[in-house]
Amino acid sequence: MLLSRSHIGTSKGEGYLSIIVFGASGDLAKKKIFPAIFSLYCQGFLPHDKVQIFGYARSALTNNDLRDQLSRYLHVRAKAQPMTSSLPHAERFLSLITYISGPYNVEEGYQKLEQVIVHHEMLRAGKDGQTGRLFYLALPPSVYLQVGRNIKAYCMNTRGWNRVVLEKPFGKDLDSSNQLSSELGGLFAEEQIYRIDHYLGKEAVQNLLVLRFSNRIIQPLWSRDHVDNVQIVFKEDFGTEGRGGYFDEYGIVRDVIQNHLVQVLCLIAMEKPASLSPECIRDEKLKVLKCVEGIRHSEVVLGQYDGYLDDPTVPKGSNTPTFASIVLRICNERWDGVPFIIKAGKALDRRKGQRRGRNEFVIRLQPAEAMYMKFTVKRPGLDMSTTQSEMDLSFLQRYKGIVIPEAYERLFLDIMRGDQKHFVRRDELETSFG
Amino acid sequence: MLLSRSHIGTSKGEGYLSIIVFGASGDLAKKKIFPAIFSLYCQGFLPHDKVQIFGYARSALTNNDLRDQLSRYLHVRAKAQPMTSSLPHAERFLSLITYISGPYNVEEGYQKLEQVIVHHEMLRAGKDGQTGRLFYLALPPSVYLQVGRNIKAYCMNTRGWNRVVLEKPFGKDLDSSNQLSSELGGLFAEEQIYRIDHYLGKEAVQNLLVLRFSNRIIQPLWSRDHVDNVQIVFKEDFGTEGRGGYFDEYGIVRDVIQNHLVQVLCLIAMEKPASLSPECIRDEKLKVLKCVEGIRHSEVVLGQYDGYLDDPTVPKGSNTPTFASIVLRICNERWDGVPFIIKAGKALDRRKGQRRGRNEFVIRLQPAEAMYMKFTVKRPGLDMSTTQSEMDLSFLQRYKGIVIPEAYERLFLDIMRGDQKHFVRRDELETSFG
Repeated sequence: MLLSRSHIGTSKGEGYLSIIVFGASGDLAKKKIFPAIFSLYCQGFLPHDKVQIFGYARSALTNNDLRDQLSRYLHVRAKAQPMTSSLPHAERFLSLITYISGPYNVEEGYQKLEQVIVHHEMLRAGKDGQTGRLFYLALPPSVYLQVGRNIKAYCMNTRGWNRVVLEKPFGKDLDSSNQLSSELGGLFAEEQIYRIDHYLGKEAVQNLLVLRFSNRIIQPLWSRDHVDNVQIVFKEDFGTEGRGGYFDEYGIVRDVIQNHLVQVLCLIAMEKPASLSPECIRDEKLKVLKCVEGIRHSEVVLGQYDGYLDDPTVPKGSNTPTFASIVLRICNERWDGVPFIIKAGKALDRRKGQRRGRNEFVIRLQPAEAMYMKFTVKRPGLDMSTTQSEMDLSFLQRYKGIVIPEAYERLFLDIMRGDQKHFVRRDELETSFG
Repeated sequence: MLLSRSHIGTSKGEGYLSIIVFGASGDLAKKKIFPAIFSLYCQGFLPHDKVQIFGYARSALTNNDLRDQLSRYLHVRAKAQPMTSSLPHAERFLSLITYISGPYNVEEGYQKLEQVIVHHEMLRAGKDGQTGRLFYLALPPSVYLQVGRNIKAYCMNTRGWNRVVLEKPFGKDLDSSNQLSSELGGLFAEEQIYRIDHYLGKEAVQNLLVLRFSNRIIQPLWSRDHVDNVQIVFKEDFGTEGRGGYFDEYGIVRDVIQNHLVQVLCLIAMEKPASLSPECIRDEKLKVLKCVEGIRHSEVVLGQYDGYLDDPTVPKGSNTPTFASIVLRICNERWDGVPFIIKAGKALDRRKGQRRGRNEFVIRLQPAEAMYMKFTVKRPGLDMSTTQSEMDLSFLQRYKGIVIPEAYERLFLDIMRGDQKHFVRRDELETSFG
């Protein structure tokens, strides 16, 4: 049912894989990265004898300290995975993890890391075996460059591939983003850099492409001739909850809209790519971004939810927006005149205003992937009046028993395979800030 | 929630209604007509003091005999009607029914019937009150004419409206149908004649019009540009089961296709009517029928299920078809080149062959009204392969607790209101045989 395991380098007998997670003791690593790796491990995508995992962070921890911390989250993941046999798996998995403590800005830590990686490579892959190194920077962007430089200087694999994975945000504006891109570009080739936008790993986001281009029924409707407006809406019904320090630096536009939602916009608006190859898809997304007109000031609404300033981690008097509504217009033949209304907000309730009598095609990316179409139908009964109803497809209900993979899990697998389709290319990134 | 009761003549203080059911002791009357009237009664559409019901048939029965026979079926209906208080209602309802025994071909019975009707009219509506008479011929077509002539001669209401309700089949071929139409036309005006095709009373059939013309999303797709073929399929998984005598005279084509399924075809294919008035809708249906090309012999398949001849009521060696598949082609701008494949059969199993990778829009009229659209979607999981899935709307699930009215109930209400929208007009009938 799942993809044949033979597609993955590591299990093709092609070599041995070192996964290096920087920021190993942080929240992102513990809650998302390690559980995703564990899930792939449980599904057989990471053969026990062909992989070694290294955690790197400043905290003074032993191997066992880190393993203990991680095991809590692996346990949770394992529950959601009916196919895993859980605990024995988790123990075997944890035994693959080695912790290295070191600073990010000083070479000693990286030299030690390199020694440990090489030690395991020699032990497991021998002198001539093929190897790959996957560096995952689960770190704030402020240290990307110093970590990147040190990887480049001390930790590059000379016997096989190197891939460096970065999390958004990739800058605060066009200048800072370009500077980061350009300096990283001096260290690594574009095909070595994986800019993660975890939204692109979501099942329903990936389904967008299939839905649009594999359904004859959708294609004739998908243009200015039949679409009045497109709304891309992101709502959270909770606030920053004590984690507003990070958020306040970026605000809702850079935290959610400029990356996640603009990526979704690209997938909705793009033309059919020549093929499903990563470069063809990224080319088409770039074309959309190039056609986006300048935002009209009159079509921007910003807001901040009541209570945001009560979060002790938020600077006093901050006017960072927690809500934004902007209208993007794509000036091409297909979309000319159709507003793409992008809304994102924290601490919003769930209710949505609905206009009656319109056909809406809704693709819900989260929570609980689903799609539905709103139709006007006859109200059941003796009357000839009408009502709005939906035809729907809930993926969770429909595919009971099938585990829909976490975004990180899917993306991690793509990185292992060297498939950049669902990652952000440098020129895309640049244009999205433009 | 239901239609305001004020729309109906009888409850507007507009008058008193006599319902006369011919064939009152037959299956159709007992199982369908009386229960439909009862259901309307329970919902308040037939105020107790404004209606009287007369059953007429040849059987020598007393009022109580008929009421006893009917009560079994009312009970069943009442269970399905959460809004009725059941038994007391049923007793009150049955008390409105008077049985008159008489032959169909001799005037005495009709004269007696007239006396009883007039007696109740005088008693209940007074000398000057408005009255209506609804004659329901739950009879085989072979006696339509003699009953019609006697109604015309002895039972016509002179103080208000008369409506005569006929059940299909309205003939075996164009000639016999035309002859029946023409002779009935000599007795009654077209607006007095209600040709019931109970298929047109089905909730989902009525929904077809709403769906087609109230949904902007459907309209652009609904033509030869985007439709490869239309299939109208009627399947029963049982045979004639001892009732093949009637069926054998007509066969599957005249029993199901020429009336029910051709009506459905009209609703699917017709242009948008100028208004929802009965005449506008019937005009548009007629236009479709006029554009239907002659059937190609190579596109007709007839068959008879194994075991049909074992039914003791079927004449020995009959070659009446119980299955037919025909292709109709509508020669107009919208549908030129699109085959309308009509299939009907008894004793067929439910399995349907499905071609993969096609978009299908399915409207299920029975059993359990539903609609769904087949889409190609991403197969959930780490793979990028696709699968077929459906977006669906099950009316029963969606509108739990709402009773979807029986076709006869709805049509009976239309007759009471004098709305011929869902009945077959003479020229439609003629063209459908052409």
